Amino acid sequence: MLHNDEGMWLPNHLPLERLKKLYDFTPTQKWIEHVQKASVRMNNGGSASLISPKGLLITNHHVAESVLHEMSSREKDYVKDGFYAHGQKDERQVPQLEVNVLWEIEDVTERVEASAKPGMTPEKSFAARRAEITKVEEESFKKTGLRSNVVTLYQGGQYHLYRFKKYTDVRLVFAPEYAIAGFGGDFDNYEYPRYCLDVSFFRVYENGQPLRTEHYFKWNFENPKEKRLSFVSGHPGSTDRLSTLARILYLRDHGLPYWLETLYREEVVLQQFSGRSEENKRKAHHALHGVQNARKLFVGQLAALQNPHFIARKKEQEDVFRKKVSVNPRLHKAYSQAWEMVERIEKRLLEIRDKVNFFDGAMGFNTKFFWIARTIVRMAEEDKKPNEKRLPEFIDSARDSLLEWLFSPAPIYPDLEEWTLAESLAFLAETFGFEDSAVKNILAGKSPRARARELIARTKLDDAGERRRLVRAGKNGVRKSTDSFIRLAFLIDKDARHWRRVFENEVEELLRRAYAKIARAQFEIYGRNLYPDATFTLRIAFGRVLGYTEKTGVVKPFTAIGEIFAHAQKHGGKDPWALPASWIKNKNVIAKSKKAFNFISTHDTHGGNSGSPVFTHDLKIAGILFDGTVAGLGDTFLYSDEESRSVSVSTAGISEVLEKIYHTKRLLEELGM
Amino acid sequence: MLHNDEGMWLPNHLPLERLKKLYDFTPTQKWIEHVQKASVRMNNGGSASLISPKGLLITNHHVAESVLHEMSSREKDYVKDGFYAHGQKDERQVPQLEVNVLWEIEDVTERVEASAKPGMTPEKSFAARRAEITKVEEESFKKTGLRSNVVTLYQGGQYHLYRFKKYTDVRLVFAPEYAIAGFGGDFDNYEYPRYCLDVSFFRVYENGQPLRTEHYFKWNFENPKEKRLSFVSGHPGSTDRLSTLARILYLRDHGLPYWLETLYREEVVLQQFSGRSEENKRKAHHALHGVQNARKLFVGQLAALQNPHFIARKKEQEDVFRKKVSVNPRLHKAYSQAWEMVERIEKRLLEIRDKVNFFDGAMGFNTKFFWIARTIVRMAEEDKKPNEKRLPEFIDSARDSLLEWLFSPAPIYPDLEEWTLAESLAFLAETFGFEDSAVKNILAGKSPRARARELIARTKLDDAGERRRLVRAGKNGVRKSTDSFIRLAFLIDKDARHWRRVFENEVEELLRRAYAKIARAQFEIYGRNLYPDATFTLRIAFGRVLGYTEKTGVVKPFTAIGEIFAHAQKHGGKDPWALPASWIKNKNVIAKSKKAFNFISTHDTHGGNSGSPVFTHDLKIAGILFDGTVAGLGDTFLYSDEESRSVSVSTAGISEVLEKIYHTKRLLEELGM
Repeated sequence: MLHNDEGMWLPNHLPLERLKKLYDFTPTQKWIEHVQKASVRMNNGGSASLISPKGLLITNHHVAESVLHEMSSREKDYVKDGFYAHGQKDERQVPQLEVNVLWEIEDVTERVEASAKPGMTPEKSFAARRAEITKVEEESFKKTGLRSNVVTLYQGGQYHLYRFKKYTDVRLVFAPEYAIAGFGGDFDNYEYPRYCLDVSFFRVYENGQPLRTEHYFKWNFENPKEKRLSFVSGHPGSTDRLSTLARILYLRDHGLPYWLETLYREEVVLQQFSGRSEENKRKAHHALHGVQNARKLFVGQLAALQNPHFIARKKEQEDVFRKKVSVNPRLHKAYSQAWEMVERIEKRLLEIRDKVNFFDGAMGFNTKFFWIARTIVRMAEEDKKPNEKRLPEFIDSARDSLLEWLFSPAPIYPDLEEWTLAESLAFLAETFGFEDSAVKNILAGKSPRARARELIARTKLDDAGERRRLVRAGKNGVRKSTDSFIRLAFLIDKDARHWRRVFENEVEELLRRAYAKIARAQFEIYGRNLYPDATFTLRIAFGRVLGYTEKTGVVKPFTAIGEIFAHAQKHGGKDPWALPASWIKNKNVIAKSKKAFNFISTHDTHGGNSGSPVFTHDLKIAGILFDGTVAGLGDTFLYSDEESRSVSVSTAGISEVLEKIYHTKRLLEELGM
Repeated sequence: MLHNDEGMWLPNHLPLERLKKLYDFTPTQKWIEHVQKASVRMNNGGSASLISPKGLLITNHHVAESVLHEMSSREKDYVKDGFYAHGQKDERQVPQLEVNVLWEIEDVTERVEASAKPGMTPEKSFAARRAEITKVEEESFKKTGLRSNVVTLYQGGQYHLYRFKKYTDVRLVFAPEYAIAGFGGDFDNYEYPRYCLDVSFFRVYENGQPLRTEHYFKWNFENPKEKRLSFVSGHPGSTDRLSTLARILYLRDHGLPYWLETLYREEVVLQQFSGRSEENKRKAHHALHGVQNARKLFVGQLAALQNPHFIARKKEQEDVFRKKVSVNPRLHKAYSQAWEMVERIEKRLLEIRDKVNFFDGAMGFNTKFFWIARTIVRMAEEDKKPNEKRLPEFIDSARDSLLEWLFSPAPIYPDLEEWTLAESLAFLAETFGFEDSAVKNILAGKSPRARARELIARTKLDDAGERRRLVRAGKNGVRKSTDSFIRLAFLIDKDARHWRRVFENEVEELLRRAYAKIARAQFEIYGRNLYPDATFTLRIAFGRVLGYTEKTGVVKPFTAIGEIFAHAQKHGGKDPWALPASWIKNKNVIAKSKKAFNFISTHDTHGGNSGSPVFTHDLKIAGILFDGTVAGLGDTFLYSDEESRSVSVSTAGISEVLEKIYHTKRLLEELGM
C-alpha cells in the first residue's frame, strides 16, 4: 500500500521493520530521543533544529521572515539587508517568537474517548471531549511545568499528550539578504533547479544565557551523497492522505477554487499597495510573500486533483479498502457508513463556509487590529468561565503564549491595514449583499472604503500599552471601550461564535467521528503500521537524495553554488533574479565552487516542514529543507516515489558562502570548522 | 436634470440651446461637419483625429499598442522602443488596422421598428429586426460603397444608419517608448497628477498615397487655457446612464464582482507567464496591460456603486422620473411596467451568464486559436444562408473587415496561448464541474493542462496560409479538417449557438423592448434634448479644463513637462517610473519646461474616447484625451461636475518633447511649427 519512502512517522511509532527491510537500519531509543530533542518547532509555523551545544538554531529564512519583518523599520530592513552578529552580545532579541522542543509523549486516547459517551449529541460529545482535553492539559502543565497539548491523530483515531520545553528568548545570529534567500521569488518557488540560501541562524536563550544542550545535530561540511539513506525531522502542517474520495472531490470542485479566488484577489490588492513605493513594498512584503506562496501551492494541488489519473489512483485505493470493509460483516456494520458521512458533512460545509470564514474566520476584516480586538473582547468574556468551558485558546495554560502575541511591540502600519480592511469589507458585502442586516450594521451606512478609513482613524490598538490597559480593565472595562475595533468585535461576536459552534458541531465533530471509524478500519485491515495525517507535530521521514524524470528529461538532484550566476544571467539579472551586492562583489571567489547549493530528495514532507534538518544516520545535518516541487504538490493527497520531492539547502553550500561571502568566522567556528 | 457639462451628444443632435445658454456659443453646420470628418474611429477600440491635410493622424499610444505589439518580434519591440519615420518612405505599414470616418447619418427608426410587428414573440421580433437591419445596411453599402452600420440608440429608442469612409492602409509615423507613454503604469493609471506621453502618430493612405483631406484639426503649440470652453469628439464605448436602478444594483451585486473575479485570476496568471523572462514579458505585455486596465476600471466603478450616497442619488432620479410616469394614466399604461421588466431580465441573465460567457463568449477557451477556428467554422456554415438570416458578423458587407482580421500576419505565440488556454479550460471545468458532459467532451479524458498542450500541438492555425486554405475549402472542406481547434469549435458550436440565442431572445431583445419604453417616457417627460448612452459611435462633449477638490486639497488641472523628474524620483526611478534613456539624456534641456504635459477637464467621456481630440471653438487641437480619474469612474452610471474628469496629453507638451527630445523635424513641420 505504501510507496517506498512514504510516511511522516510519529517519533514514538517509527516503522522499524520497514526501515530494516528497505535500508538495513535500526534506530536505537537513544537515537530517536536525540533526534526528537534536537528538533525544534517554530510556533510561527515552521521547523528548525539545534546545531550546537550552545543553543544555536537553524531554520529557513522564509520561516524567520515574519520575525525579521517585525524587527524592521523604515530605517533598517532586516528582510532586505540581512544581519550578522559579530559577537554574542550583538545577537538581537526578536520581538515575539516562541519555539518548542518535544520532551515527552503520553497516549491519552482512552481517557479522551471515555469522556464522550455513546449516544451523546454532537454538541455534547464535542463539549465533553474538549473539557476533558483541557483537564488533561492543565493537569499536565501543573504537574510538569511543561507546555502540554493534546494532539488529535488519525483525524480522531488517537489522542496523544505532547509535553514541550518552551523558549521565548530567541536572538538573531545571521540572516542573508532576501534577494539570495528568496532568489527567483514567486517564479522559482516550488520549481527546480533552485538556488536559494533560504536559511537563518538564531540562538535559543534560557535565563538570559545561551541554552546548554546535549541534543544537537553536527554540521556536515561535505556535499550530501546521492541515493544514501537520510532523515528529515520536522512539523508537517496538514495533509489529506486519510481523506476520502468525497473529501478530495470537494477540495477539487469547491475547496481549492474557493480559496484561490480569495488569494488571486488578495494578491492583486497587495500588489496595488506594494508597488507604489519602496516603503510600501517593505511594509507589505511579508503579507504578499505569504499570499503568493499559498496561491502557488493551491494552484499546484488543484492541478494534481484536476488530473483524472490522479483521481483514478485515489479511487482505486479507496475501492480496494472499502471492499475489504464491506466483505466482512463485522467491519461492514461498524465502519462502512463512514464514507457517506464524510460526503454529507462536506455538503454541509459548503452551505456554511461563507458565514464561518467571513465572521468567525474574520475574512471580512482583514486587519491585525480586528484580531487584536477580538482577542481582547473574547478573553474578557471567557475568563469569567471555568477553565474547561472556555474556548481552548483562552485556557490558563495557554495564556502566556497568547499574551506574548497580544502585547508584541511589532509595528502595525495603518495605511496597509486600511487598504486590506477596505478591500475585505467590500468582499464581505459582495458575498452577503448590501441589504444583509449584518453587513448593514458593519458598514454603518458608509461605503466599505469610507468605513475602513473611519475604523482605522478611531482605534488606538496600534499601541501595545492600550492593549495591556484593556486586558487589565476586564469584562466591564472592555464593554465600555469606545475603540472602533473593540466595538466592531462586539458587534459581530454573537454571529461569529454562532457560526463557530455550527462548524464545530456539524463539521468538525462529525468528521472526527467519521474518520475515527475509517482510521480504526484501517488499523484492523492494514495493521497498526500506518502514519497519521500531518498535524504540525514532530514527524520523522526517511528517504534519499534523488533526481526525477520529467518530460524535458532527467533533473539532477544537485545544484552547485557557482551555477547561480548563469541562472541569474538567464533572467537578465532582474528582480527577483537580481543577486545581492555581496554575491556580485565576491563572484570571482565562488564562481567555480562545486559545493552543493540546493538538492532534492524523496523525503515525505509537507508545509510546516520548512526549516527541518535533513540528517544522516550518524546524526550529522546535511541540509535544511525549504520547499517541495510543483510536480509533487499532489502529495498533500497521495505520496509518490516518482513525483514527490523535497528541496533543501545543502549545509556544504551554506558553510561555503558563510566563509567566502559573509566571513562569519565566529559562526563557522561554532559549527566546527 | 443634467449637470452643467454633462452629455455625450450625437453630432446630428447637438444641444444648441444649452451651448448658447451656458457658453454663448453656437456651432454652424459647417463647424459640425468639419468636426465629424476630422474625427476618426479606430476599429481596434479607440478614437483619433486627422491633424494635417495629408492624412496625419494622432491617437493614444495605448490605442496603438495592439498594433505596435503585432508589428513586434523578439528582434524589434515597437512597444518598448518606440519608432520614428524620418522620411515618408520610412512610414511603416501596420499589419491590420481599419479606421473609419463618419460621413453620413440617416434616421431609420421607423423602418426598423415597422419590421417587428406587435404581438411577435421575442424570437420573431429579434429575427425580424435583425433581418431588416441587414437589409438596410446592404442596400446602403451597394448604393454608396460606404461601410454602413445601423446603430441602436437610446437602448432601442432610435435606429440611425451610419455611413463611414473606411481606410485600411495605415502607416506608423511616430511612437514614443512605452516607459514614457505609460509612465507610472498600472499604479498611475486612472490617477492624477499624471505624466504620460500617451500618443502615437500614424498616416492614413488612400490608393497608396497619403490621404488628402480638408477636414483636420490645426495644432496648438500653446498651453490650454483653464476654464475656457472646449470640445471632445470621439467614440465612448458604453455607459449605463439610462439604466434602471435594478440594473445598477445587478452590476453592484453580481455583474462587476463576477468580472473582477475573472480579471484577478487572469492578471495573476498572465503575471506568472510574463515575469519569467524579458521575452515572455514582451509577448504578454499587451494582454496583461489590457487586463490590468479593465481591473482598475471595474474596481473604480464598483467602489462608486458601493457608496450608498451614489445609489441614493440614482434612486432619487429614478423615483422622480417614475412618479412623473405613474401620475399620468396614459404614460402609466404605456411605460410603467418597463422597470419591473428590467429587473426580471437581470435575474434571468444571472441564471444563464456562465453558459453564455464560457461557451458563446469562449471564456473557457482563452486563446486566439479558438476565435480563429470558430470564425472559420461559423463562416462556412453561415455562408450557406441568405444574407439577412446570417449572424450579423458574417453578412456580405462586413466580409472585407472580417477577412482582414482573420488573415492578419500578426504573430501568435504558442507558449502564451497554451498558458492561457490551460488556465481557462481549468476555469471552465471548475465552473461547470468535471462531471458535466460538455466539460468531459472538451477535456477528452485529460487534465486541463494536458489537454491544452495537446490542442496547441495539433493546430496549424498560427499559419495565415492555412486559414486561407480552410476558408477557401468551404463547408465540406472545413468539416473534414482534423485541426485540433477546428474540431473543438465544431464540438461546442451547437451549445454555443444555443446560449447565444437564449441570450439574444431572453435578455437582449427584452431589454431593448423595456428600454425603448423608458426612452420614450423620457422623451415625453423631459423632451427630446437628451443624449443616448454611449455606443462606440461619434459623440461630441463640451467642457472646461478644470481642477477638482479631494480630501487632501485642490488638485490643479495641469502638470508641466519639467515636473516629471521629481515624480520619477519620488518612486526611486524604478519601473514603472523608470524614464526612458532619451529623457534621461535630455534632462537638462527640458527640466525647467513649463509646457503643459497632462491636464484634466470636465468633458463627459468614457472608455473608447481614448485618443479623442480636445479642441477649441476655432477647431485647434489642444490635447489628446487618454484617461479618466478614479474619483470619476462612477460616471459610467452618473456624470458629476464635481468628480467626473477626463485626462489628456497637452499638444503644447507633445510638440515640446518632439522638438527637444525626439528631434522629429519633418513631423513638427507638418504640424505647422
